[in-house]
Amino acid sequence: MKLAIYGYGNLGRGVECAVLQNPDAELVGIFTRRDPNTVRSLTGVPVYSADRVMDFQDEIDVLILCGGSATDLPHMSPELAKGFNVLDSFDTHANIPEHFKAVDAAAKGSGHIALISCGWDPGLFSLNRLYASAVLPDGKDYTFWGRGVSQGHSDAIRRIPGVLDARQYTVPVREALEAVREGKMPELTARQKHLRECYVVAAPDADLAAIEQAIVTMPNYFSDYDTTVTFVSSEELKRNHAELPHGGFVIRAGKTGLHGEHSHTIEYSLHLDSNPEFTACVLVAYARALTRMKSRGDSGCKTVFDVAPGDLSSLSPDELRKRML
Amino acid sequence: MKLAIYGYGNLGRGVECAVLQNPDAELVGIFTRRDPNTVRSLTGVPVYSADRVMDFQDEIDVLILCGGSATDLPHMSPELAKGFNVLDSFDTHANIPEHFKAVDAAAKGSGHIALISCGWDPGLFSLNRLYASAVLPDGKDYTFWGRGVSQGHSDAIRRIPGVLDARQYTVPVREALEAVREGKMPELTARQKHLRECYVVAAPDADLAAIEQAIVTMPNYFSDYDTTVTFVSSEELKRNHAELPHGGFVIRAGKTGLHGEHSHTIEYSLHLDSNPEFTACVLVAYARALTRMKSRGDSGCKTVFDVAPGDLSSLSPDELRKRML
Repeated sequence: MKLAIYGYGNLGRGVECAVLQNPDAELVGIFTRRDPNTVRSLTGVPVYSADRVMDFQDEIDVLILCGGSATDLPHMSPELAKGFNVLDSFDTHANIPEHFKAVDAAAKGSGHIALISCGWDPGLFSLNRLYASAVLPDGKDYTFWGRGVSQGHSDAIRRIPGVLDARQYTVPVREALEAVREGKMPELTARQKHLRECYVVAAPDADLAAIEQAIVTMPNYFSDYDTTVTFVSSEELKRNHAELPHGGFVIRAGKTGLHGEHSHTIEYSLHLDSNPEFTACVLVAYARALTRMKSRGDSGCKTVFDVAPGDLSSLSPDELRKRML
Repeated sequence: MKLAIYGYGNLGRGVECAVLQNPDAELVGIFTRRDPNTVRSLTGVPVYSADRVMDFQDEIDVLILCGGSATDLPHMSPELAKGFNVLDSFDTHANIPEHFKAVDAAAKGSGHIALISCGWDPGLFSLNRLYASAVLPDGKDYTFWGRGVSQGHSDAIRRIPGVLDARQYTVPVREALEAVREGKMPELTARQKHLRECYVVAAPDADLAAIEQAIVTMPNYFSDYDTTVTFVSSEELKRNHAELPHGGFVIRAGKTGLHGEHSHTIEYSLHLDSNPEFTACVLVAYARALTRMKSRGDSGCKTVFDVAPGDLSSLSPDELRKRML
C-alpha cells in the first residue's frame, strides 16, 4: 500500500516511523503547510508543499491526515476525501456524528473511502467499549486515562499570564480503579476517577500563588478535579517531562446467570511511552484495512466499528486462523 | 433473531440465560440427544429431541451448537451447516484449519453462514492477539490462562485408578506476568508461565502417594509444570470447588520509534465467575452478527476475525458512533 502523510508534527513523524515496521507499506511523501524547504523528514522521504497534494492523486492509496481536531480536521478531512482515501484521528468525541456526516458525504460523492477517529481513544478503547458491552449487556463500563500527558490541559495552563511552559499529567485514582476491577460497579464523579498533576515554569517575576489559583479553579479543565501544581525550572521540565507517555484502562463489569449470580470483568489497558507514535501505529494498520475494503468496492466514511479485524493484519486469513485463533 | 440451542450441558444452559439479557433474541427451542422428557429447561423453553431439528429449519435464524470439541463438533458442525446457520465454540486450536474447511464446504454448499471457534479463547483472546500484533508489528505476545478450572486436566486426573473426583486449576505465575507487563519480553517455558493446582477426592483404600506420583508425572498434562496435589473430601470438593471460574491475560509488548526507543504494552484480561456463562454471552453476540451478515447475502464459514465489531451490538451504527466511539 502506498501511503502519504498530510501534516508533519508529532503524529506525522510517528506515522513515518510506523511505516518502516510494515514491509507492505511504502511512504510516497510528506505534505506540509510550511515551506517544504524548511522541513526535513526523519527517513529521507520527500517533503512537498500541501498545495501540491492533488498532483499525487494517482500515487497514493491512503492519505493519512495528521492535523489537529480543533481547527484542522473538521475542514481538512471532508475536503481531502474529495480526492483521496483518507484516514484521520479526529478526537473531539462530541462532534464525531457531525464530522462523520461531512466526511461521508464527501467520500461518497467522490467514490473514495475514509475512516475517521482512529487511534486509541477514540479507536482501540472504543472497540473495547463496544465488544465488552455487546458481550455483557447487563453491566457498566468505565474508561480511565493515564498516567499520561494531556496536551489540551497543558495548553490551557500555558495560556495563563506569567506561565512560560507547562506539562499536565492525567492520573487515574488507584482506589477507583480497584473498586471497578472488583466488580463493585461504583458511581464515580470526575474527581473520584482522575487526579491532575501540573508542572509549571513561571516567569521570574510571576505571582506563583495567583498562577496556582488560576489553574485549580479553571472551569472544565481543573475545577472538578483534585489538582496539584508544582513549579519547576525550564531545565527541569525539559529533563523530566519531555516525553509524551499516555495510556489508560477500559473496564466493564457485568453479571450473568438466571438471577445475575455470576460476575465478570473485562479489562483492556495500554501503557504507552509515546502517545503519538502508538497512535500512528494504529493509523497504519487501519490504512491497510482501508486499502483492502476499497479494493473490494467499498466507499464512504467508516469507523473502527466497521472494519473486520482480519483486514488489519498483513497475514492471510488462512495464516491468521492457524496462528492467532 | 430466533435462536436455538443444540446440546444442553453447562454451555447450553449459559446460552439460555444469555438470551434473557438480549431483548432482540428469542429462544425457539433446545435440542438434546437425551430423551427430551427427562430434560427440563431453566426458563420453560421447549426441549426437543435432536432427531427432530430439521423440522425447525424455517423457524431458526442461528443454531448454537453446544457440543464438545473432542468428539461432537468435528462432525456436528459440518452436518448441521447443511441445514442451518450455525455457531460453535470449537477450541482444539491445532485442528481449527481442518474444522474450518469442513464447515466452510458444508455452509457454502447449502448457502448458509457459519462461525466456528467462538468464545473467549479462541474468541476474544484471538481478537486481542490479532489487534495487538497488527498495531505493534515489532513486538511479542503472551497468553496466560487462569486462575481457572481446566475441564480437560480435571478429567485426566479422574481417569487415574483410585480417584473418585478432581478439580484442576490453572494459575498464571505472578513473576512471569509482571516481567511481561514491564515490557521485558522474556522467553518463558511452560513451567515458568503456569502452575497447576489439583484438588483430588481419593477412594477410601487408595494409595495417595501413587495417585500424586501419577498426576505430577503425567506427560503433556502435568509433567512440564510445577503441580501441587491436595487431597480433599468429597464434601469439601463440592463446597469449595463447585464453580467454574476462569479467565486470563493477553499481553503484547512492542517497540516504536526510529530506533525502537519507545516501549508499549497492550493488555487484555478477563476475570470470569462462570466460564460457560461468559462463553455463552460471546456466542449470543456473534449470533446477532451472523444474522446480519446472512441478511446482507454473506455465506460460508467465518471466524471472529471476519466480523466487523459493529455487527455485534444491538445499537445502530449512528448510536454506536455517538455513544461508544
